[in-house]
Amino acid sequence: MFSHETQIRVRYAETDQMGVVYHGNYFPFLESGRVEAIRSLGMSYADLEKIGIQMPVVEIQCKYLRPARYDDLLRVLTSLPKLPTDHRIEFHQEIYRDSDELLFKAQIKLYFWDKDKNEKTVMPAALLDRLKSFYHE
Amino acid sequence: MFSHETQIRVRYAETDQMGVVYHGNYFPFLESGRVEAIRSLGMSYADLEKIGIQMPVVEIQCKYLRPARYDDLLRVLTSLPKLPTDHRIEFHQEIYRDSDELLFKAQIKLYFWDKDKNEKTVMPAALLDRLKSFYHE
Amino acid sequence: MFSHETQIRVRYAETDQMGVVYHGNYFPFLESGRVEAIRSLGMSYADLEKIGIQMPVVEIQCKYLRPARYDDLLRVLTSLPKLPTDHRIEFHQEIYRDSDELLFKAQIKLYFWDKDKNEKTVMPAALLDRLKSFYHE
Amino acid sequence: MFSHETQIRVRYAETDQMGVVYHGNYFPFLESGRVEAIRSLGMSYADLEKIGIQMPVVEIQCKYLRPARYDDLLRVLTSLPKLPTDHRIEFHQEIYRDSDELLFKAQIKLYFWDKDKNEKTVMPAALLDRLKSFYHE
Repeated sequence: MFSHETQIRVRYAETDQMGVVYHGNYFPFLESGRVEAIRSLGMSYADLEKIGIQMPVVEIQCKYLRPARYDDLLRVLTSLPKLPTDHRIEFHQEIYRDSDELLFKAQIKLYFWDKDKNEKTVMPAALLDRLKSFYHE
Repeated sequence: MFSHETQIRVRYAETDQMGVVYHGNYFPFLESGRVEAIRSLGMSYADLEKIGIQMPVVEIQCKYLRPARYDDLLRVLTSLPKLPTDHRIEFHQEIYRDSDELLFKAQIKLYFWDKDKNEKTVMPAALLDRLKSFYHE
Repeated sequence: MFSHETQIRVRYAETDQMGVVYHGNYFPFLESGRVEAIRSLGMSYADLEKIGIQMPVVEIQCKYLRPARYDDLLRVLTSLPKLPTDHRIEFHQEIYRDSDELLFKAQIKLYFWDKDKNEKTVMPAALLDRLKSFYHE
Repeated sequence: MFSHETQIRVRYAETDQMGVVYHGNYFPFLESGRVEAIRSLGMSYADLEKIGIQMPVVEIQCKYLRPARYDDLLRVLTSLPKLPTDHRIEFHQEIYRDSDELLFKAQIKLYFWDKDKNEKTVMPAALLDRLKSFYHE
């Protein structure tokens, strides 16, 4: 299974007056996790947009287990349990503090979207080929 | 069942380069919906914090059906299917454009949290009493 | 001189762990102030974009005098000391709590930008005509 | 003179529908620049808060020269032209893309604030001592 880890330092801007990260500010962290995961495959999300493919988020399920705090160095784990077979892709993502303290987990579903045709599309072959090697038996 | 509606004008800051509202920016809209719903009951969320009660978000399930756009005047519908019976409360929220175009829907679970004791608590009696009238048979 | 006032309720998302509004979150408040000021003239900023005109911010000077807090109902005053005569426009903006407590003030300079030609342009005549009435002797 | 450089990758969340970074989203970039600059001196801003010192922003002057774009790897240069002699500190900050394309520059003034006494204070001696070495003749 393909998985990837990236690190994010919590900014002051991302906290709220509860003294922890505002619940809506975890989604840019997840976004960075997915973006760096894709980049590690040799193609950036910016490259995808240049060839006319966008990836809008269509569904989220998430749980907040422990609060992330200012200046924490978070580990964002991004994994792809299944290869996409149509216009949909679903990532599983977890956010840890230090090696083993799980703070947050999410399942997040996105579509591959053809910007010019304004309709659903599929993952570009070049990216899919890279991914396939992670799912060989 | 208790339900409440509030309106929100989409800011430029809330869009992204896809030309629509960034998916993470719906959560402050939902927050405003819940805050105004509680205010309509005669007690503000700020009042709750003054008596030492915080309401951290612990779980979200949501679907993005159609994109909200810059300068849209959104209607945020907030409802409470069940009276809270312990430290948990779950809101159902929907965001519409105009009278009938559903853009987004979410179920969002929060805890009542005693800030000083740093432990779970329950909804203040004054607020619960106000709510009860909406659930009479 | 043209001036306009709009109200904004501070969201939890806009606070930080200092217990006040994060300094970077005043800029969406100013944006709302300018947008509503323009709308009061009979043309929305969204309309401007539809005819190919964008207004990027090019310069800001601002002072933070007293902190805005969660749930404050802020008054954003937007005024235009001089009619624009070229591609530049400068707004003076102030943010108050209640009737007379000045929290923040800013001078903010923007350009009129022709999106298709990708070059400077001027304020559309229809909008300029509306504004002129505020500067008659 | 003390100066420091840090890198920031632009997130999708930080763009707006103009296709560039929203003008208000440069301030968290500057914040990260200052925070990493202070950390390089052997004390984190989080450490400062633990000993009761906050650093609210009180004044900003800034210019937007060229737009930062999605996925840009920005270089944030943070320098301190003068050692602080009272409760005020002023940073000069610049944001570059690649080695030499200047996008944005700012002067940003902050106070040292004693959280418990709720009054102005000065830079902690330990931090000032570290800084002094950069201003020897």
